[in-house]
Amino acid sequence: MNELNLQNTAKQVMSLLAERNYQLVAVESCTGGWVGKIITDLSGSSAVFAGSFVTYSNRAKQQMVGVQLKTLEAFGAVSEQVAAEMAQGAVQRTDAQIALSITGVAGPTGGTKAKPVGMVCFGWAIENNDPETTVCYFDGDRDEVRQQAVEYALQGVALRLAK
Amino acid sequence: MNELNLQNTAKQVMSLLAERNYQLVAVESCTGGWVGKIITDLSGSSAVFAGSFVTYSNRAKQQMVGVQLKTLEAFGAVSEQVAAEMAQGAVQRTDAQIALSITGVAGPTGGTKAKPVGMVCFGWAIENNDPETTVCYFDGDRDEVRQQAVEYALQGVALRLAK
Repeated sequence: MNELNLQNTAKQVMSLLAERNYQLVAVESCTGGWVGKIITDLSGSSAVFAGSFVTYSNRAKQQMVGVQLKTLEAFGAVSEQVAAEMAQGAVQRTDAQIALSITGVAGPTGGTKAKPVGMVCFGWAIENNDPETTVCYFDGDRDEVRQQAVEYALQGVALRLAK
Repeated sequence: MNELNLQNTAKQVMSLLAERNYQLVAVESCTGGWVGKIITDLSGSSAVFAGSFVTYSNRAKQQMVGVQLKTLEAFGAVSEQVAAEMAQGAVQRTDAQIALSITGVAGPTGGTKAKPVGMVCFGWAIENNDPETTVCYFDGDRDEVRQQAVEYALQGVALRLAK
């Protein structure tokens, strides 16, 4: 796994978005803007990329994409429920047809027994459909966890667009 | 200029923000999330980083941070006027006390005689003060233009916090 993989995945996602005439919006917590960075490394990405909300703090999750306080309190920021609201909120707030969301514990601090370092929750929302979510447990240091999360989120977009 | 410079500048910005008990919000167009990525490479950045709006499209600039259509039409997306509204909009929409904004022509396409590849406009807003803006003309390819823009925007934050 390296930056080249990410670039190839981003290229694949860009092609699939262009084929369907879709725009993507990302909502990133632990990856902090890396999804946006890797997509906009590619010239021409403006045709298919609306932008990202980097909702790093809990307040930002509420203010930028409308995650509900009660969801954060009930399930925590790193949860599939919050990932779902992040993705849904971004589709509602932009012209994009598909959203991805990422919220996880990148480490090295912040891990607990229930939510260890490397735990990352993902959401994908297409238009008004119910968001799909999943949770992964990645190995590695902060950088490796974040990179795997970016890759996984983009692959999830490709998978859903290729259907 | 390399990624290490960026990391050092990000560390310096983090320290200055922590000293003043400030949170930063970024609004990134041509850099696409790179400011957020470089800050959140650092563990502990959640204390001083609210998040980013990656407003890659014109519509996103309006929808995410309230840039006015008439400003976009009168001055274009790459203008100090738009950079000012991006920064101001982000401070208004989050708990952050300081915002940086970046909008430019990263290339290789999209340049004109009036707005060549490498032209990047920046804004910085602190609380309710009028935003400060500037424009730079960077040399280099897409990656180099973007990297210099990230560095310059962060240095602008450091400069204003160190006052």
